[in-house]
Amino acid sequence: MTDVEETDAGPGTVVPLGRARRRRMAPAERRRDLIAAALELFSQRDPELVTVEDIAAHADVSRALFYRYFSNIREIRAAALRRAVDGLIARLIVPRTGPLLAQLRAALNEFLDFAESYEASYVTLLRSGSTVATAETSALVDEVRVRAVAEILDRLGVEELTPFVSLTLRCWVAVVEGTVLTWLQERTLPRDELVSWLIDQLLAMGAATVAHDPAAQALLDRVSTELSG
Amino acid sequence: MTDVEETDAGPGTVVPLGRARRRRMAPAERRRDLIAAALELFSQRDPELVTVEDIAAHADVSRALFYRYFSNIREIRAAALRRAVDGLIARLIVPRTGPLLAQLRAALNEFLDFAESYEASYVTLLRSGSTVATAETSALVDEVRVRAVAEILDRLGVEELTPFVSLTLRCWVAVVEGTVLTWLQERTLPRDELVSWLIDQLLAMGAATVAHDPAAQALLDRVSTELSG
Repeated sequence: MTDVEETDAGPGTVVPLGRARRRRMAPAERRRDLIAAALELFSQRDPELVTVEDIAAHADVSRALFYRYFSNIREIRAAALRRAVDGLIARLIVPRTGPLLAQLRAALNEFLDFAESYEASYVTLLRSGSTVATAETSALVDEVRVRAVAEILDRLGVEELTPFVSLTLRCWVAVVEGTVLTWLQERTLPRDELVSWLIDQLLAMGAATVAHDPAAQALLDRVSTELSG
Repeated sequence: MTDVEETDAGPGTVVPLGRARRRRMAPAERRRDLIAAALELFSQRDPELVTVEDIAAHADVSRALFYRYFSNIREIRAAALRRAVDGLIARLIVPRTGPLLAQLRAALNEFLDFAESYEASYVTLLRSGSTVATAETSALVDEVRVRAVAEILDRLGVEELTPFVSLTLRCWVAVVEGTVLTWLQERTLPRDELVSWLIDQLLAMGAATVAHDPAAQALLDRVSTELSG
């Protein structure tokens, strides 16, 4: 990526009306703009079908300019996913007000909104045998999982994490991920019902873990007290 | 792959003692033998680290002979996985005797035995960002998931499958898969306890589904009757 400002083709260059993007931008701004254009396309279409040409056209720049910022389609896919993941993590960190289960419901709704707005990309990236998934994209997806578990533990006030509690939460996150994938692909279940089902699954999985690890009881108590209080 | 019988280099060729494999084989037999050699290596080592040369050496054949059967390492990896998956599915179909939960426990133990015997390959193939996973290997892994769910439904006598029951079972299979991956990677949980925990999770997940889908109740009743009977 270049770090000098873009220059016009010459003093006579006319910026076409209605194509506000075709203007000089500082490199960081151009890079952001290209990623934003890519994300718009990835929200509409299977990322496998989005080409460098599509992104350049959508950002209203030449292919040559595109290649000053990204070496290939994989590179901008990864940058776009990085931006999407950062946005998702910020959205999952819902306000710490009200009962924990209401916070969890809010976070699940944020996740479903996100998955729905990037439906084609979510399905392509997470279905098995994805042709656009790489070690890098998988690491980014993993980051969301790890952050989701950490956020739940933090709000539950867990200080010492036992293997079974950790496993239960990680498994539940996998359940959420698979459920959302199924929901997007099949649409046989109403969204609201799905959110309630997911919360019920977490409580049930946690309760089943108590027999194997008493540490899970304190966490369930924390949630139940709020429910009855 | 050739379909003619292998020939010796000439009438003077001496087969070294103690290398029983270096003998003429019919093509189908040679192919099976190469796959068996590959599987032996894949059970010992990360498949990323196993080369065509390793497999040829382990099967006691030349690289040239190897390439008469497989075009590249990916091709024999896929063939080896196909054989391993067939073997796993056969093992998961445990005898239909005794209570359903005992059958489930037996199938889980078969699965853990399998995962443990192919530990390096299981971890490499199923961890996110796997560099050896392809659309083809993922389809094979999916086949195991689909067969596992079908087998459970069949033994439960489910005739009409509702979306929530289907989702619950598929999620539980994902829980098993992720749990086994965690177990192999971290070894913080005793294996027997893990099997009991997985069964408890299935029962808990099923029970939590009842509030959303009464069809789950009949299945739980079926299992509970056996438990109390």
